[in-house]
Amino acid sequence: MYIPTYDDVLAAHERIKPFIHRTPVLTSSYFNDLTGAELFFKCENFQKAGAFKVRGASNAVFGLSDEMAAKGVATHSSGNHALSLSYAAGRRGIPCHVVMPRTAPQAKKDAVRGYGGIITECEPSTTSREAVFAEVQAATGAEFVHPYNDPRVIAGQATCSKELLEQVEGLDAVIAPIGGGGMISGTCLTLSNIAPQVKIYAAEPEQADDAYRSFKAGHIIADDAPNTVADGLKVPLKELTWHFVSNHVSDILTASEEEIVDAMKLTWKRMKIVIEPSCAVPLATILKNRDVFAGKRVGVIITGGNVDLDALPWIKA
Amino acid sequence: MYIPTYDDVLAAHERIKPFIHRTPVLTSSYFNDLTGAELFFKCENFQKAGAFKVRGASNAVFGLSDEMAAKGVATHSSGNHALSLSYAAGRRGIPCHVVMPRTAPQAKKDAVRGYGGIITECEPSTTSREAVFAEVQAATGAEFVHPYNDPRVIAGQATCSKELLEQVEGLDAVIAPIGGGGMISGTCLTLSNIAPQVKIYAAEPEQADDAYRSFKAGHIIADDAPNTVADGLKVPLKELTWHFVSNHVSDILTASEEEIVDAMKLTWKRMKIVIEPSCAVPLATILKNRDVFAGKRVGVIITGGNVDLDALPWIKA
Repeated sequence: MYIPTYDDVLAAHERIKPFIHRTPVLTSSYFNDLTGAELFFKCENFQKAGAFKVRGASNAVFGLSDEMAAKGVATHSSGNHALSLSYAAGRRGIPCHVVMPRTAPQAKKDAVRGYGGIITECEPSTTSREAVFAEVQAATGAEFVHPYNDPRVIAGQATCSKELLEQVEGLDAVIAPIGGGGMISGTCLTLSNIAPQVKIYAAEPEQADDAYRSFKAGHIIADDAPNTVADGLKVPLKELTWHFVSNHVSDILTASEEEIVDAMKLTWKRMKIVIEPSCAVPLATILKNRDVFAGKRVGVIITGGNVDLDALPWIKA
Repeated sequence: MYIPTYDDVLAAHERIKPFIHRTPVLTSSYFNDLTGAELFFKCENFQKAGAFKVRGASNAVFGLSDEMAAKGVATHSSGNHALSLSYAAGRRGIPCHVVMPRTAPQAKKDAVRGYGGIITECEPSTTSREAVFAEVQAATGAEFVHPYNDPRVIAGQATCSKELLEQVEGLDAVIAPIGGGGMISGTCLTLSNIAPQVKIYAAEPEQADDAYRSFKAGHIIADDAPNTVADGLKVPLKELTWHFVSNHVSDILTASEEEIVDAMKLTWKRMKIVIEPSCAVPLATILKNRDVFAGKRVGVIITGGNVDLDALPWIKA
């Protein structure tokens, strides 16, 4: 297992800069008053393809040799990683193969195709997904880019907190959501190298708290069937992300579904930005753990803004 | 009738700077591709109190003598002007009286009270509103601040395009929504003085097109009962805003309800910002008048972001 280094982060940032946004950091006097902390929201919802995942995907795509790149890239995510990999592949002019369950929402399929991704459908089961994915890889020779358990991807995600440190001085803590752990691992990679005094918090839905339980137990525990509105956070830690989480995270905090939806809606209402349920989890945990963050300067990673506007979680169908 | 000058704008900007945000200008490669223009979105949805109206309200409030200010300010808007005037009065530590129909949505009353406004309810008729407002003024001596037909307010709104010109070079045109005409008048005031080469477009809902018809007729025509999702744009022009519109606006463009809602939703989806229906009207008209704007550098005023998140116009109840 290759553990990416801070040199990999520096190389990643140079490599991907032409293809990503240096996203803005927003502040909100309303949320500062409400939490007693000074919050700095790193807005990856404004990122290309609408999420931070374009950092890691671009690093993987643009790090390939011309020979490898010619065969394209492949993945089996159906979320932001698929969009991001499709976007990055499009910028390099190579194919991106995405294996998705035929039952995936049409909106997600349309979004992937909108960024130029080539979809191969599978049945909605792990067995079928793995079989179909193996066929696609065999037929194309495309390079597999895992959504998070990949050193290239983690080095790419690490550029987000590198920018945040350049944009905001004197941070006491950074908090980000945790699902598979790609963003948190990138955050650990950057902060442990260039700002080790900054505490790192991960925020997770109570109803998908495998990282929380893994962290407390000291080894990876996978959830069987997590169910949360924060659908980007259902995936489990893997060995590479576990390495970073277990070594560098100060604590993992959790929030209930209601707390997540309330924080999401309040962010839309007061900050006028569209954020995904996943990235409302950090704010939800700050609101319920006031004593941990009050008086502190806290970076909050807003991971993405890809939301189904026709099915908002606070509106009953 | 006092016509505000550009010196009034300069004085207004100095006066209100401590109380407002210098809002960011966002761009979107997606919308640039879609329109063939280069669009620069001046994001007053990120403004204090969630709308540009805080500029004019602050200028009125902070321009009062101490003696006048002590008696407070008053208005009878139930929208962004009421929020903004309440916010500005709160910053000066003086009362703000708002006359609102008792039938106004609870959310609007809560929002005004949230900014410290003191509500006096009237019946939902013009007669009652005027009678109750006269009583409030007689009892308090509060200074009436009209939402738009007031030189102090127009000079305040004019600071928005002053900032935009400082932030973006070489604009060919600026477009803003038109209701009562406060923002457009401020835009005319600034541009006609310091950038007369920049064309000024106003955007209006077809279903509340009194400004369009006035512009074509050469005199003010008031709508009787306009009905549009862009509820901030239902009010008619008055003599002061008509002065600016008739002298400086290049053209008024209109959009249908469906076009407005589509542009609003598309902005949320692609730019990840929460905007009101009113400020989707300019983008809707740009999308349908591609030939007017293609190849041009166009400033688009995003006027506000105060939306009822429980009643979005693309979701059927």
